Amino acid sequence: MGKNVVERRIMWGDLDSLGIVFYPRYYEWIDASGHLFFETIGLNLGDLWNERQILFGLAETSCSYHKPGRYHQKISITTHVDVLAEKTVVLKHAIRERPTGTLLVEGYEKRICLDVSDPNNFRAIYIPDDILVVLKNAVSG
Amino acid sequence: MGKNVVERRIMWGDLDSLGIVFYPRYYEWIDASGHLFFETIGLNLGDLWNERQILFGLAETSCSYHKPGRYHQKISITTHVDVLAEKTVVLKHAIRERPTGTLLVEGYEKRICLDVSDPNNFRAIYIPDDILVVLKNAVSG
Amino acid sequence: MGKNVVERRIMWGDLDSLGIVFYPRYYEWIDASGHLFFETIGLNLGDLWNERQILFGLAETSCSYHKPGRYHQKISITTHVDVLAEKTVVLKHAIRERPTGTLLVEGYEKRICLDVSDPNNFRAIYIPDDILVVLKNAVSG
Amino acid sequence: MGKNVVERRIMWGDLDSLGIVFYPRYYEWIDASGHLFFETIGLNLGDLWNERQILFGLAETSCSYHKPGRYHQKISITTHVDVLAEKTVVLKHAIRERPTGTLLVEGYEKRICLDVSDPNNFRAIYIPDDILVVLKNAVSG
Repeated sequence: MGKNVVERRIMWGDLDSLGIVFYPRYYEWIDASGHLFFETIGLNLGDLWNERQILFGLAETSCSYHKPGRYHQKISITTHVDVLAEKTVVLKHAIRERPTGTLLVEGYEKRICLDVSDPNNFRAIYIPDDILVVLKNAVSG
Repeated sequence: MGKNVVERRIMWGDLDSLGIVFYPRYYEWIDASGHLFFETIGLNLGDLWNERQILFGLAETSCSYHKPGRYHQKISITTHVDVLAEKTVVLKHAIRERPTGTLLVEGYEKRICLDVSDPNNFRAIYIPDDILVVLKNAVSG
Repeated sequence: MGKNVVERRIMWGDLDSLGIVFYPRYYEWIDASGHLFFETIGLNLGDLWNERQILFGLAETSCSYHKPGRYHQKISITTHVDVLAEKTVVLKHAIRERPTGTLLVEGYEKRICLDVSDPNNFRAIYIPDDILVVLKNAVSG
Repeated sequence: MGKNVVERRIMWGDLDSLGIVFYPRYYEWIDASGHLFFETIGLNLGDLWNERQILFGLAETSCSYHKPGRYHQKISITTHVDVLAEKTVVLKHAIRERPTGTLLVEGYEKRICLDVSDPNNFRAIYIPDDILVVLKNAVSG
Protein backbone atom coordinates (compact mmCIF):
# COMPACT_ATOMS: atom_id res chain seq x y z
CA MET A 1 0.00 0.00 0.00
CA GLY A 2 1.36 3.41 -0.95
CA LYS A 3 2.05 5.56 2.01
CA ASN A 4 4.18 8.51 2.89
CA VAL A 5 5.92 9.29 6.17
CA VAL A 6 7.00 12.80 7.13
CA GLU A 7 9.08 13.41 10.23
CA ARG A 8 9.26 16.72 12.02
CA ARG A 9 9.76 18.24 15.44
CA ILE A 10 7.24 20.22 17.40
CA MET A 11 8.54 23.77 17.64
CA TRP A 12 7.92 26.69 19.99
CA GLY A 13 5.62 28.41 17.52
CA ASP A 14 3.37 25.35 17.33
CA LEU A 15 2.40 25.56 20.99
CA ASP A 16 -0.38 27.35 22.79
CA SER A 17 -0.36 28.80 26.32
CA LEU A 18 -0.71 25.33 27.82
CA GLY A 19 2.53 24.28 26.18
CA ILE A 20 0.70 21.85 23.88
CA VAL A 21 0.21 22.01 20.12
CA PHE A 22 -2.44 24.50 18.95
CA TYR A 23 -4.70 22.19 16.93
CA PRO A 24 -4.86 24.13 13.61
CA ARG A 25 -1.12 23.33 13.32
CA TYR A 26 -2.01 19.63 12.98
CA TYR A 27 -4.13 20.51 9.96
CA GLU A 28 -1.26 22.48 8.43
CA TRP A 29 1.00 19.43 8.78
CA ILE A 30 -1.70 17.09 7.48
CA ASP A 31 -2.26 19.28 4.44
CA ALA A 32 1.47 19.38 3.73
CA SER A 33 1.71 15.60 4.22
CA GLY A 34 -1.15 15.11 1.78
CA HIS A 35 0.69 17.08 -0.88
CA LEU A 36 3.85 15.04 -0.30
CA PHE A 37 1.80 11.83 -0.43
CA PHE A 38 0.46 12.73 -3.87
CA GLU A 39 3.98 13.46 -5.02
CA THR A 40 5.27 10.16 -3.62
CA ILE A 41 2.77 8.19 -5.70
CA GLY A 42 3.65 10.20 -8.80
CA LEU A 43 1.04 12.97 -8.81
CA ASN A 44 2.51 16.46 -8.60
CA LEU A 45 -0.38 18.72 -7.61
CA GLY A 46 1.46 21.79 -8.90
CA ASP A 47 1.80 20.26 -12.35
CA LEU A 48 -1.81 19.00 -12.35
CA TRP A 49 -2.92 22.52 -11.68
CA ASN A 50 -0.63 24.29 -14.14
CA GLU A 51 -0.97 21.82 -17.00
CA ARG A 52 -4.50 20.47 -16.62
CA GLN A 53 -6.30 22.92 -14.29
CA ILE A 54 -7.20 20.03 -12.00
CA LEU A 55 -7.04 20.11 -8.23
CA PHE A 56 -8.06 17.94 -5.32
CA GLY A 57 -9.93 20.47 -3.19
CA LEU A 58 -11.18 19.88 0.32
CA ALA A 59 -14.73 18.64 0.95
CA GLU A 60 -14.25 17.66 4.57
CA THR A 61 -11.49 17.38 7.18
CA SER A 62 -11.45 15.96 10.68
CA CYS A 63 -9.07 15.15 13.51
CA SER A 64 -9.39 13.31 16.80
CA TYR A 65 -6.88 14.12 19.52
CA HIS A 66 -5.57 11.31 21.69
CA LYS A 67 -2.61 12.84 23.47
CA PRO A 68 -1.24 16.39 23.42
CA GLY A 69 1.90 17.10 21.41
CA ARG A 70 4.62 18.91 23.36
CA TYR A 71 7.76 21.02 22.85
CA HIS A 72 10.56 19.49 20.81
CA GLN A 73 8.88 16.09 20.48
CA LYS A 74 9.81 14.24 17.36
CA ILE A 75 6.72 13.16 15.46
CA SER A 76 5.91 11.25 12.31
CA ILE A 77 2.91 11.81 10.05
CA THR A 78 1.90 8.74 8.04
CA THR A 79 -0.50 9.22 5.13
CA HIS A 80 -2.38 6.68 2.99
CA VAL A 81 -5.51 6.48 0.83
CA ASP A 82 -8.42 5.28 2.93
CA VAL A 83 -11.34 5.45 0.48
CA LEU A 84 -11.32 6.03 -3.27
CA ALA A 85 -14.52 6.92 -5.14
CA GLU A 86 -15.37 8.30 -8.58
CA LYS A 87 -14.94 11.94 -7.67
CA THR A 88 -13.33 11.83 -4.25
CA VAL A 89 -10.42 10.41 -2.34
CA VAL A 90 -10.05 10.19 1.42
CA LEU A 91 -6.54 10.51 2.82
CA LYS A 92 -5.96 9.25 6.33
CA HIS A 93 -3.18 10.64 8.49
CA ALA A 94 -1.75 9.32 11.74
CA ILE A 95 0.51 11.54 13.84
CA ARG A 96 2.69 9.54 16.22
CA GLU A 97 5.34 10.37 18.74
CA ARG A 98 8.84 9.17 17.81
CA PRO A 99 10.34 6.76 18.60
CA THR A 100 7.64 5.29 20.87
CA GLY A 101 4.97 5.22 18.19
CA THR A 102 2.34 6.54 20.63
CA LEU A 103 -0.61 7.89 18.67
CA LEU A 104 -1.20 11.62 19.16
CA VAL A 105 -3.70 12.51 16.45
CA GLU A 106 -5.71 10.75 13.76
CA GLY A 107 -7.18 12.75 10.93
CA TYR A 108 -8.58 12.56 7.44
CA GLU A 109 -9.05 14.81 4.47
CA LYS A 110 -11.82 14.08 1.98
CA ARG A 111 -10.63 15.65 -1.24
CA ILE A 112 -12.77 16.16 -4.31
CA CYS A 113 -11.50 16.34 -7.87
CA LEU A 114 -12.06 19.86 -9.23
CA ASP A 115 -11.82 21.50 -12.62
CA VAL A 116 -10.45 24.95 -11.72
CA SER A 117 -10.09 26.27 -15.27
CA ASP A 118 -12.58 28.99 -14.31
CA PRO A 119 -10.93 30.49 -11.19
CA ASN A 120 -14.26 31.92 -10.04
CA ASN A 121 -16.25 28.72 -10.37
CA PHE A 122 -14.61 25.43 -9.35
CA ARG A 123 -16.51 22.40 -10.69
CA ALA A 124 -16.47 18.83 -9.27
CA ILE A 125 -15.50 16.27 -11.93
CA TYR A 126 -14.89 12.53 -12.19
CA ILE A 127 -11.28 11.74 -11.42
CA PRO A 128 -9.65 11.34 -14.89
CA ASP A 129 -8.77 7.71 -15.73
CA ASP A 130 -4.99 8.13 -15.75
CA ILE A 131 -5.08 9.72 -12.30
CA LEU A 132 -7.54 7.13 -11.00
CA VAL A 133 -5.13 4.35 -12.00
CA VAL A 134 -2.35 5.97 -10.02
CA LEU A 135 -4.60 6.33 -6.97
CA LYS A 136 -5.85 2.71 -7.27
CA ASN A 137 -2.28 1.49 -7.32
CA ALA A 138 -1.64 3.52 -4.20
CA VAL A 139 -4.53 1.74 -2.44
CA SER A 140 -3.69 -1.81 -3.43
CA GLY A 141 -0.02 -1.54 -4.29
CA MET B 1 -30.42 29.78 22.66
CA GLY B 2 -27.04 31.25 23.50
CA LYS B 3 -24.95 31.96 20.47
CA ASN B 4 -22.11 34.18 19.50
CA VAL B 5 -21.44 35.89 16.18
CA VAL B 6 -18.01 37.07 15.13
CA GLU B 7 -17.52 39.11 11.99
CA ARG B 8 -14.26 39.37 10.12
CA ARG B 9 -12.80 39.85 6.66
CA ILE B 10 -10.79 37.37 4.70
CA MET B 11 -7.29 38.79 4.36
CA TRP B 12 -4.40 38.23 1.98
CA GLY B 13 -2.55 36.05 4.46
CA ASP B 14 -5.52 33.69 4.76
CA LEU B 15 -5.34 32.66 1.10
CA ASP B 16 -3.48 29.89 -0.66
CA SER B 17 -2.12 29.90 -4.22
CA LEU B 18 -5.60 29.39 -5.65
CA GLY B 19 -6.72 32.62 -4.06
CA ILE B 20 -9.04 30.77 -1.67
CA VAL B 21 -8.80 30.36 2.09
CA PHE B 22 -6.19 27.83 3.27
CA TYR B 23 -8.37 25.53 5.38
CA PRO B 24 -6.37 25.50 8.66
CA ARG B 25 -7.30 29.21 8.89
CA TYR B 26 -10.96 28.20 9.32
CA TYR B 27 -9.95 26.16 12.36
CA GLU B 28 -8.06 29.15 13.80
CA TRP B 29 -11.18 31.28 13.46
CA ILE B 30 -13.41 28.53 14.85
CA ASP B 31 -11.13 28.11 17.86
CA ALA B 32 -11.16 31.85 18.51
CA SER B 33 -14.95 31.94 18.09
CA GLY B 34 -15.30 29.11 20.59
CA HIS B 35 -13.33 31.08 23.17
CA LEU B 36 -15.49 34.14 22.59
CA PHE B 37 -18.64 32.00 22.81
CA PHE B 38 -17.64 30.75 26.26
CA GLU B 39 -17.00 34.32 27.33
CA THR B 40 -20.37 35.46 25.97
CA ILE B 41 -22.21 32.93 28.13
CA GLY B 42 -20.17 33.94 31.16
CA LEU B 43 -17.31 31.44 31.18
CA ASN B 44 -13.89 33.03 30.86
CA LEU B 45 -11.55 30.20 29.89
CA GLY B 46 -8.52 32.15 31.06
CA ASP B 47 -10.00 32.51 34.55
CA LEU B 48 -11.12 28.86 34.65
CA TRP B 49 -7.58 27.86 33.92
CA ASN B 50 -5.85 30.27 36.31
CA GLU B 51 -8.26 29.90 39.22
CA ARG B 52 -9.49 26.31 38.93
CA GLN B 53 -7.01 24.55 36.59
CA ILE B 54 -9.91 23.49 34.39
CA LEU B 55 -9.91 23.59 30.62
CA PHE B 56 -12.09 22.45 27.76
CA GLY B 57 -9.54 20.63 25.63
CA LEU B 58 -10.15 19.28 22.15
CA ALA B 59 -11.26 15.69 21.62
CA GLU B 60 -12.33 16.05 18.00
CA THR B 61 -12.75 18.75 15.35
CA SER B 62 -14.24 18.67 11.87
CA CYS B 63 -15.19 20.97 9.01
CA SER B 64 -17.08 20.52 5.76
CA TYR B 65 -16.42 23.00 2.98
CA HIS B 66 -19.31 24.17 0.85
CA LYS B 67 -17.92 27.14 -1.02
CA PRO B 68 -14.42 28.64 -1.07
CA GLY B 69 -13.79 31.85 0.86
CA ARG B 70 -12.12 34.59 -1.18
CA TYR B 71 -10.11 37.82 -0.77
CA HIS B 72 -11.70 40.60 1.25
CA GLN B 73 -15.02 38.81 1.67
CA LYS B 74 -16.85 39.73 4.82
CA ILE B 75 -17.79 36.65 6.79
CA SER B 76 -19.60 35.81 10.00
CA ILE B 77 -18.89 32.89 12.30
CA THR B 78 -21.88 31.80 14.38
CA THR B 79 -21.27 29.49 17.33
CA HIS B 80 -23.69 27.57 19.54
CA VAL B 81 -23.76 24.47 21.78
CA ASP B 82 -24.88 21.48 19.76
CA VAL B 83 -24.55 18.60 22.26
CA LEU B 84 -23.92 18.72 26.00
CA ALA B 85 -22.88 15.60 27.92
CA GLU B 86 -21.40 14.87 31.35
CA LYS B 87 -17.80 15.39 30.35
CA THR B 88 -18.04 16.93 26.91
CA VAL B 89 -19.60 19.76 24.97
CA VAL B 90 -19.89 20.05 21.20
CA LEU B 91 -19.72 23.55 19.74
CA LYS B 92 -21.08 24.01 16.24
CA HIS B 93 -19.81 26.79 14.01
CA ALA B 94 -21.25 28.11 10.74
CA ILE B 95 -19.16 30.41 8.57
CA ARG B 96 -21.26 32.48 6.19
CA GLU B 97 -20.59 35.10 3.58
CA ARG B 98 -21.87 38.58 4.48
CA PRO B 99 -24.37 39.98 3.72
CA THR B 100 -25.76 37.18 1.51
CA GLY B 101 -25.71 34.54 4.27
CA THR B 102 -24.33 31.92 1.84
CA LEU B 103 -22.85 29.06 3.83
CA LEU B 104 -19.11 28.60 3.28
CA VAL B 105 -18.07 26.19 6.02
CA GLU B 106 -19.71 24.16 8.78
CA GLY B 107 -17.61 22.82 11.60
CA TYR B 108 -17.69 21.50 15.12
CA GLU B 109 -15.37 21.15 18.05
CA LYS B 110 -15.94 18.40 20.60
CA ARG B 111 -14.37 19.71 23.78
CA ILE B 112 -13.74 17.66 26.87
CA CYS B 113 -13.52 18.99 30.42
CA LEU B 114 -9.97 18.59 31.72
CA ASP B 115 -8.28 18.96 35.06
CA VAL B 116 -4.89 20.42 34.07
CA SER B 117 -3.50 20.91 37.59
CA ASP B 118 -0.72 18.51 36.63
CA PRO B 119 0.63 20.14 33.45
CA ASN B 120 2.18 16.85 32.33
CA ASN B 121 -0.94 14.76 32.76
CA PHE B 122 -4.31 16.24 31.78
CA ARG B 123 -7.24 14.27 33.19
CA ALA B 124 -10.84 14.14 31.86
CA ILE B 125 -13.37 15.07 34.55
CA TYR B 126 -17.12 15.56 34.89
CA ILE B 127 -18.07 19.13 34.05
CA PRO B 128 -18.48 20.82 37.50
CA ASP B 129 -22.11 21.58 38.38
CA ASP B 130 -21.83 25.36 38.32
CA ILE B 131 -20.30 25.28 34.84
CA LEU B 132 -22.84 22.69 33.64
CA VAL B 133 -25.67 25.02 34.65
CA VAL B 134 -24.18 27.83 32.57
CA LEU B 135 -23.80 25.53 29.56
CA LYS B 136 -27.36 24.17 29.95
CA ASN B 137 -28.70 27.69 29.95
CA ALA B 138 -26.75 28.33 26.78
CA VAL B 139 -28.46 25.36 25.11
CA SER B 140 -32.02 26.09 26.14
CA GLY B 141 -31.87 29.81 26.88
CA MET C 1 -2.42 62.39 6.83
CA GLY C 2 -4.05 59.19 5.57
CA LYS C 3 -4.04 56.45 8.11
CA ASN C 4 -5.97 53.33 8.87
CA VAL C 5 -6.85 51.87 12.24
CA VAL C 6 -7.75 48.22 12.71
CA GLU C 7 -9.01 46.92 16.04
CA ARG C 8 -8.82 43.33 17.11
CA ARG C 9 -8.49 41.11 20.15
CA ILE C 10 -5.61 38.85 21.00
CA MET C 11 -6.90 35.30 20.83
CA TRP C 12 -5.81 31.98 22.31
CA GLY C 13 -4.26 30.85 19.04
CA ASP C 14 -2.03 33.94 18.92
CA LEU C 15 -0.18 33.01 22.10
CA ASP C 16 2.91 30.96 22.75
CA SER C 17 3.74 28.84 25.80
CA LEU C 18 4.55 31.94 27.84
CA GLY C 19 1.04 33.22 27.31
CA ILE C 20 2.28 36.10 25.17
CA VAL C 21 1.82 36.73 21.45
CA PHE C 22 4.02 34.59 19.18
CA TYR C 23 5.77 37.30 17.17
CA PRO C 24 5.05 36.09 13.60
CA ARG C 25 1.38 36.84 14.41
CA TYR C 26 2.26 40.56 14.63
CA TYR C 27 3.53 40.37 11.06
CA GLU C 28 0.31 38.67 9.92
CA TRP C 29 -1.69 41.53 11.43
CA ILE C 30 0.64 44.16 10.02
CA ASP C 31 0.38 42.63 6.55
CA ALA C 32 -3.41 42.58 6.79
CA SER C 33 -3.43 46.17 8.07
CA GLY C 34 -1.25 47.23 5.15
CA HIS C 35 -3.76 45.80 2.69
CA LEU C 36 -6.61 47.60 4.43
CA PHE C 37 -4.58 50.83 4.47
CA PHE C 38 -4.16 50.68 0.69
CA GLU C 39 -7.88 50.11 0.33
CA THR C 40 -8.68 53.02 2.65
CA ILE C 41 -6.73 55.43 0.46
CA GLY C 42 -8.42 54.06 -2.66
CA LEU C 43 -5.96 51.43 -3.88
CA ASN C 44 -7.43 47.93 -4.01
CA LEU C 45 -4.43 45.60 -4.26
CA GLY C 46 -6.60 42.79 -5.62
CA ASP C 47 -7.77 44.99 -8.50
CA LEU C 48 -4.24 46.30 -9.16
CA TRP C 49 -3.09 42.75 -9.50
CA ASN C 50 -5.99 41.46 -11.61
CA GLU C 51 -6.29 44.46 -13.92
CA ARG C 52 -2.75 45.78 -14.17
CA GLN C 53 -0.50 42.98 -12.90
CA ILE C 54 1.04 45.36 -10.39
CA LEU C 55 1.82 44.52 -6.79
CA PHE C 56 3.58 46.08 -3.85
CA GLY C 57 5.85 43.23 -2.81
CA LEU C 58 7.98 43.13 0.30
CA ALA C 59 11.59 44.31 0.26
CA GLU C 60 12.05 44.50 4.01
CA THR C 61 10.05 44.18 7.22
CA SER C 62 10.93 44.87 10.83
CA CYS C 63 9.34 45.03 14.27
CA SER C 64 10.51 46.15 17.68
CA TYR C 65 8.75 44.76 20.71
CA HIS C 66 8.09 47.04 23.65
CA LYS C 67 5.64 45.09 25.79
CA PRO C 68 4.19 41.59 25.37
CA GLY C 69 0.63 41.22 24.09
CA ARG C 70 -1.57 38.98 26.26
CA TYR C 71 -4.78 36.94 26.13
CA HIS C 72 -7.97 38.78 25.20
CA GLN C 73 -6.33 42.21 25.16
CA LYS C 74 -7.95 44.65 22.80
CA ILE C 75 -5.41 46.17 20.46
CA SER C 76 -5.35 48.69 17.67
CA ILE C 77 -3.03 48.68 14.67
CA THR C 78 -2.47 52.11 13.14
CA THR C 79 -0.89 52.31 9.68
CA HIS C 80 0.46 55.26 7.71
CA VAL C 81 2.96 56.01 4.92
CA ASP C 82 6.34 56.82 6.42
CA VAL C 83 8.55 57.22 3.34
CA LEU C 84 7.58 57.42 -0.32
CA ALA C 85 10.16 57.00 -3.07
CA GLU C 86 10.09 56.37 -6.82
CA LYS C 87 9.81 52.62 -6.59
CA THR C 88 9.12 51.99 -2.92
CA VAL C 89 6.82 52.92 -0.11
CA VAL C 90 7.41 52.35 3.60
CA LEU C 91 4.34 51.67 5.72
CA LYS C 92 4.70 52.19 9.45
CA HIS C 93 2.51 50.30 11.90
CA ALA C 94 1.97 50.90 15.61
CA ILE C 95 0.24 48.25 17.71
CA ARG C 96 -1.22 49.66 20.90
CA GLU C 97 -3.18 48.27 23.79
CA ARG C 98 -6.76 49.52 24.02
CA PRO C 99 -7.96 51.70 25.62
CA THR C 100 -4.75 52.73 27.42
CA GLY C 101 -2.82 53.43 24.22
CA THR C 102 0.30 51.71 25.60
CA LEU C 103 2.64 50.87 22.74
CA LEU C 104 3.22 47.13 22.31
CA VAL C 105 4.95 46.87 18.92
CA GLU C 106 6.26 49.19 16.25
CA GLY C 107 6.93 47.84 12.78
CA TYR C 108 7.42 48.78 9.19
CA GLU C 109 7.08 47.19 5.79
CA LYS C 110 9.16 48.48 2.90
CA ARG C 111 7.16 47.58 -0.18
CA ILE C 112 8.43 47.74 -3.72
CA CYS C 113 6.33 48.26 -6.82
CA LEU C 114 6.43 45.10 -8.95
CA ASP C 115 5.30 44.17 -12.43
CA VAL C 116 4.14 40.58 -11.93
CA SER C 117 2.84 39.98 -15.46
CA ASP C 118 5.41 37.20 -15.73
CA PRO C 119 4.57 35.08 -12.66
CA ASN C 120 8.04 33.52 -12.70
CA ASN C 121 9.96 36.77 -12.85
CA PHE C 122 8.72 39.72 -10.83
CA ARG C 123 10.29 43.00 -11.93
CA ALA C 124 10.72 46.21 -9.88
CA ILE C 125 9.17 49.23 -11.65
CA TYR C 126 8.61 52.93 -10.99
CA ILE C 127 5.34 53.47 -9.18
CA PRO C 128 2.90 54.52 -11.97
CA ASP C 129 1.93 58.21 -11.82
CA ASP C 130 -1.74 57.72 -10.97
CA ILE C 131 -0.83 55.48 -8.04
CA LEU C 132 1.96 57.83 -6.91
CA VAL C 133 -0.56 60.67 -6.70
CA VAL C 134 -2.79 58.63 -4.45
CA LEU C 135 0.13 57.71 -2.20
CA LYS C 136 1.36 61.33 -2.06
CA ASN C 137 -2.07 62.45 -0.96
CA ALA C 138 -1.96 59.80 1.74
CA VAL C 139 1.32 61.27 3.04
CA SER C 140 0.34 64.92 3.06
CA GLY C 141 -3.46 64.68 3.14
CA MET D 1 31.89 29.41 14.66
CA GLY D 2 28.80 27.68 15.98
CA LYS D 3 26.01 27.55 13.49
CA ASN D 4 22.94 25.50 12.84
CA VAL D 5 21.44 24.50 9.51
CA VAL D 6 17.82 23.46 9.14
CA GLU D 7 16.51 22.09 5.86
CA ARG D 8 12.88 22.13 4.86
CA ARG D 9 10.60 22.31 1.85
CA ILE D 10 8.23 25.09 1.00
CA MET D 11 4.71 23.68 1.27
CA TRP D 12 1.34 24.65 -0.16
CA GLY D 13 0.22 26.22 3.09
CA ASP D 14 3.23 28.55 3.11
CA LEU D 15 2.17 30.30 -0.09
CA ASP D 16 0.00 33.31 -0.75
CA SER D 17 -2.20 34.00 -3.76
CA LEU D 18 0.82 34.87 -5.88
CA GLY D 19 2.23 31.42 -5.31
CA ILE D 20 5.11 32.81 -3.25
CA VAL D 21 5.83 32.45 0.45
CA PHE D 22 3.66 34.61 2.72
CA TYR D 23 6.34 36.50 4.64
CA PRO D 24 5.24 35.80 8.26
CA ARG D 25 6.10 32.16 7.49
CA TYR D 26 9.78 33.15 7.19
CA TYR D 27 9.62 34.49 10.73
CA GLU D 28 8.06 31.24 11.96
CA TRP D 29 10.95 29.30 10.44
CA ILE D 30 13.52 31.75 11.76
CA ASP D 31 12.08 31.52 15.26
CA ALA D 32 12.16 27.70 15.11
CA SER D 33 15.73 27.80 13.74
CA GLY D 34 16.76 30.08 16.59
CA HIS D 35 15.47 27.56 19.13
CA LEU D 36 17.33 24.74 17.40
CA PHE D 37 20.48 26.88 17.27
CA PHE D 38 20.40 27.36 21.03
CA GLU D 39 19.97 23.64 21.48
CA THR D 40 22.86 22.89 19.12
CA ILE D 41 25.24 24.97 21.22
CA GLY D 42 23.99 23.31 24.40
CA LEU D 43 21.31 25.69 25.64
CA ASN D 44 17.87 24.11 25.86
CA LEU D 45 15.44 27.01 26.12
CA GLY D 46 12.74 24.78 27.57
CA ASP D 47 15.04 23.76 30.43
CA LEU D 48 16.24 27.35 30.98
CA TRP D 49 12.66 28.37 31.39
CA ASN D 50 11.52 25.48 33.60
CA GLU D 51 14.58 25.33 35.82
CA ARG D 52 15.78 28.93 35.98
CA GLN D 53 12.86 31.04 34.73
CA ILE D 54 15.14 32.61 32.14
CA LEU D 55 14.19 33.28 28.54
CA PHE D 56 15.62 35.04 25.53
CA GLY D 57 12.68 37.18 24.51
CA LEU D 58 12.43 39.24 21.35
CA ALA D 59 13.47 42.89 21.29
CA GLU D 60 13.59 43.30 17.52
CA THR D 61 13.27 41.21 14.36
CA SER D 62 13.85 42.03 10.71
CA CYS D 63 13.99 40.39 7.30
CA SER D 64 15.02 41.53 3.85
CA TYR D 65 13.62 39.66 0.88
CA HIS D 66 15.87 39.03 -2.10
CA LYS D 67 13.97 36.46 -4.13
CA PRO D 68 10.52 34.91 -3.60
CA GLY D 69 10.31 31.35 -2.26
CA ARG D 70 8.11 29.04 -4.33
CA TYR D 71 6.18 25.76 -4.11
CA HIS D 72 8.16 22.66 -3.16
CA GLN D 73 11.52 24.41 -3.21
CA LYS D 74 14.06 22.92 -0.87
CA ILE D 75 15.53 25.57 1.38
CA SER D 76 18.11 25.77 4.13
CA ILE D 77 18.08 28.16 7.08
CA THR D 78 21.52 28.86 8.53
CA THR D 79 21.73 30.52 11.95
CA HIS D 80 24.67 32.01 13.82
CA VAL D 81 25.38 34.59 16.56
CA ASP D 82 26.04 37.96 14.97
CA VAL D 83 26.42 40.25 17.99
CA LEU D 84 26.74 39.35 21.66
CA ALA D 85 26.28 41.99 24.37
CA GLU D 86 25.73 41.97 28.14
CA LYS D 87 21.99 41.55 28.00
CA THR D 88 21.31 40.76 24.37
CA VAL D 89 22.28 38.43 21.57
CA VAL D 90 21.59 38.93 17.87
CA LEU D 91 21.00 35.80 15.81
CA LYS D 92 21.42 36.10 12.07
CA HIS D 93 19.56 33.80 9.72
CA ALA D 94 20.10 33.20 6.00
CA ILE D 95 17.47 31.34 3.99
CA ARG D 96 18.87 29.86 0.79
CA GLU D 97 17.48 27.80 -2.04
CA ARG D 98 18.86 24.25 -2.22
CA PRO D 99 21.05 23.09 -3.84
CA THR D 100 21.92 26.32 -5.71
CA GLY D 101 22.61 28.33 -2.55
CA THR D 102 20.76 31.35 -3.97
CA LEU D 103 19.90 33.73 -1.13
CA LEU D 104 16.15 34.19 -0.64
CA VAL D 105 15.89 35.97 2.70
CA GLU D 106 18.23 37.43 5.32
CA GLY D 107 16.93 38.11 8.79
CA TYR D 108 17.92 38.71 12.36
CA GLU D 109 16.42 38.38 15.79
CA LYS D 110 17.69 40.56 18.62
CA ARG D 111 16.92 38.59 21.75
CA ILE D 112 17.12 39.95 25.26
CA CYS D 113 17.76 37.93 28.39
CA LEU D 114 14.66 37.97 30.59
CA ASP D 115 13.84 36.88 34.11
CA VAL D 116 10.27 35.57 33.72
CA SER D 117 9.81 34.33 37.29
CA ASP D 118 6.96 36.81 37.56
CA PRO D 119 4.79 35.85 34.56
CA ASN D 120 3.11 39.25 34.56
CA ASN D 121 6.30 41.28 34.62
CA PHE D 122 9.25 40.10 32.54
CA ARG D 123 12.50 41.81 33.54
CA ALA D 124 15.66 42.31 31.41
CA ILE D 125 18.75 40.91 33.13
CA TYR D 126 22.45 40.46 32.42
CA ILE D 127 23.07 37.17 30.68
CA PRO D 128 24.27 34.83 33.48
CA ASP D 129 27.98 33.98 33.27
CA ASP D 130 27.60 30.28 32.50
CA ILE D 131 25.26 31.04 29.60
CA LEU D 132 27.48 33.89 28.37
CA VAL D 133 30.41 31.47 28.15
CA VAL D 134 28.40 29.11 25.98
CA LEU D 135 27.33 31.97 23.69
CA LYS D 136 30.91 33.31 23.45
CA ASN D 137 32.12 29.90 22.41
CA ALA D 138 29.41 29.86 19.75
CA VAL D 139 30.75 33.15 18.36
CA SER D 140 34.42 32.31 18.31
CA GLY D 141 34.37 28.52 18.35
